[in-house]
Amino acid sequence: MPNAPVDAVAQVILALAVLLAGAKLGGHLAERLGQPAVLGELVAGILVGNLDLVGVPWVRTLGSDGTIDVLAKLGAVVLLFEVGLQSTVGDILSVGVRSFVVAVLGVVTPWVLGWGVGALALPNASPYVHAFLGATLTATSVGITARVLKDLGRAQSAEARIILGAAVIDDVLGLVILAVIGSVIAAANLGTGLSYGQVAAVLFKALAFLVGALAVGAVFSPRLFALTARLRGQGTLLTTALVFCFLLAYLASAVGLAPIVGAYAAGLVLEEAHSQKLEELVRPIGTLLVPVFFVVMGTRVRLEAFAHTEILGLATLLTVAAIVGKQACALGGLGAPLNRLAIGLGMIPRGEVGLIFANLGLGLTLHGVPVIDERVFSAVVLMVVLTALVTPPALKWSLARAPRRAHAAVAATQNVQVVQQFKGSFAVSDGSTT
Amino acid sequence: MPNAPVDAVAQVILALAVLLAGAKLGGHLAERLGQPAVLGELVAGILVGNLDLVGVPWVRTLGSDGTIDVLAKLGAVVLLFEVGLQSTVGDILSVGVRSFVVAVLGVVTPWVLGWGVGALALPNASPYVHAFLGATLTATSVGITARVLKDLGRAQSAEARIILGAAVIDDVLGLVILAVIGSVIAAANLGTGLSYGQVAAVLFKALAFLVGALAVGAVFSPRLFALTARLRGQGTLLTTALVFCFLLAYLASAVGLAPIVGAYAAGLVLEEAHSQKLEELVRPIGTLLVPVFFVVMGTRVRLEAFAHTEILGLATLLTVAAIVGKQACALGGLGAPLNRLAIGLGMIPRGEVGLIFANLGLGLTLHGVPVIDERVFSAVVLMVVLTALVTPPALKWSLARAPRRAHAAVAATQNVQVVQQFKGSFAVSDGSTT
Repeated sequence: MPNAPVDAVAQVILALAVLLAGAKLGGHLAERLGQPAVLGELVAGILVGNLDLVGVPWVRTLGSDGTIDVLAKLGAVVLLFEVGLQSTVGDILSVGVRSFVVAVLGVVTPWVLGWGVGALALPNASPYVHAFLGATLTATSVGITARVLKDLGRAQSAEARIILGAAVIDDVLGLVILAVIGSVIAAANLGTGLSYGQVAAVLFKALAFLVGALAVGAVFSPRLFALTARLRGQGTLLTTALVFCFLLAYLASAVGLAPIVGAYAAGLVLEEAHSQKLEELVRPIGTLLVPVFFVVMGTRVRLEAFAHTEILGLATLLTVAAIVGKQACALGGLGAPLNRLAIGLGMIPRGEVGLIFANLGLGLTLHGVPVIDERVFSAVVLMVVLTALVTPPALKWSLARAPRRAHAAVAATQNVQVVQQFKGSFAVSDGSTT
Repeated sequence: MPNAPVDAVAQVILALAVLLAGAKLGGHLAERLGQPAVLGELVAGILVGNLDLVGVPWVRTLGSDGTIDVLAKLGAVVLLFEVGLQSTVGDILSVGVRSFVVAVLGVVTPWVLGWGVGALALPNASPYVHAFLGATLTATSVGITARVLKDLGRAQSAEARIILGAAVIDDVLGLVILAVIGSVIAAANLGTGLSYGQVAAVLFKALAFLVGALAVGAVFSPRLFALTARLRGQGTLLTTALVFCFLLAYLASAVGLAPIVGAYAAGLVLEEAHSQKLEELVRPIGTLLVPVFFVVMGTRVRLEAFAHTEILGLATLLTVAAIVGKQACALGGLGAPLNRLAIGLGMIPRGEVGLIFANLGLGLTLHGVPVIDERVFSAVVLMVVLTALVTPPALKWSLARAPRRAHAAVAATQNVQVVQQFKGSFAVSDGSTT
């Protein structure tokens, strides 16, 4: 059918084929080089998105197609739902004081440093933009660290458990910071600005949404699933879970938060009884949509931006702030016989949450100007790539300095699976091809 | 984030939640009433799409959102891929002469009758429109029949096997007819028209694409999957299959056929070794996207159209043509001790393929006028609903006239699973809630 409406779908179908094939090849090559698959997906996206530099303009338009953009954002929602499914409210409440302190230090310090980098490198931008840029540095993506710890037989160590717990908490903290900055920027757009009291009110609203969604969900979701379990037809469990996730994502958006906050809360709330089966059922949907997100993020990187000294400088400073900022986590290890350096180094990798924040910034405007423009976005992606690349050698070096504990190797394999389940999206697989 | 770009995604997310919840509830109620789930999904869509009649205009816009429209069409592609996965090229070649004759008779007669109904009811429309309308009546959706045969312990009967084989073939024949009419309409739009020789050339092209895709695919796909099986990372099998499906769907579109033709061919080609695992992996994606297709089809029904006598008359005549046309299938049972009436009645139900054709017609234009307008579309959906409703009682009546065969009940359950695997999308589940 050579008419227009059919062709619009055909274009989306072709774009999906190209994006998925690129993601798969990039992911494979990355894993061959001992890197996480998403790094390869990002780099594949960067290559695809910059083919116009070598005279192939068509593919660059993939990332700017409206439907592909929505599919990529749906991919982010599904990804955060999956990440949420891999934890429970109990996990969050039980991480322990030390993990909590590590998480708070590891969120506040990079945020402040990133804010400062923004003020330094983008002096003409609003302080809100600087604050937003700092927020992209907050959330750790622990999959790479989990893999390195496993390879070194240290997955069972106290350091590993602290890093794991802290990475779960800093997702939540990052989402709260995002909610607050988003609301502040929205108010600034209306020309009203926000007093400190109003910022506190927004912070309260964000926390209230999360706590409220988790509390109501914890009471309500078992009943919902018990009720829908009696529905006839196929796919009832998955459909119920998707409707639950989408409704919370929409509610989050309705109260002024990002949809991913609701999707993450929905994943956290779901009972462990369902969440393992659900992880299996949601995974194929993630296999379709999540690589679209990462490749599209890559296509939005403008390689020519790095020809400008100030953007290359911004990327370098952001990376330094991201790495140095997380070393504050080491302070969380004070007063115990821990390898504090390893804790700080293990928290370095950034991933999906930072990319989602930066992408939201591309869509947000402040007085008509994007909060994150495409050159700053490119710098954030480079920061994500560099933090992922720098972690494995640094962590190996740090752990080699301290003697390996006797019991570590024994239970390593078993425990690292839990670690990878927690933050699996940036995980490095064992080369399995299921 | 109350800015526009985020809200666009939030709207899509809310629409998905509403569509999926409506589909699930409608499907449940339909199955409670002994009907297939998709009938409930269609009716849920009709209700949602006509809430503006009772003063709730918002939900009607769900079906006309551009992204939801693309997701619904992606749902149709995934559905035909699933249908294709449930058969193999071998199945198609081995249906036997009798099934082939039944299929050809059951495609040609309703097509001609539907063409005549179009000429009668829409005298001002082009003959191409009449031919297109007839094509929506061609493909049987055998799931309902399979369920009735199972309930009566006749799933192992010769009639059941003939119906099953014929339903697989008439999908292929329907897709070829669609390809030819689509090309004829495209040529007519260019003002050139087509000679009989050119129509023959289009027919050849459609068959050549199908045969070529199947032949090349049969040679190429095992190597492709053997190659990609060596790729590292998660989801390799599913990603490879999706890329293969999307590429063939795009290729079909590029040579002037509907994308679903390519998706169906991709499903057929995939080796049985993979297809069972793939069915399992594709199903969650179908759970997300396929109900979107059926509910959106329902939302496009304009109930007020049936206030016009000519549309109600068109719907009635189309339904009669659909039912009477398939009785020609009984001729395929001549010369054997078969319940010929049961064969004709068992071929009556129409489903996803007819809806997909009608929906393509909504998007096609001939000299600036839609080939299928929304009132004619409403009549086609009513035809699908009525043929599904009329089949179970008619088939039961017909089979009760003939004595049940002794061996039938023994292997019934085993065989009906095969039947349902073949054309599962319109199947009636056993009330299982997985």
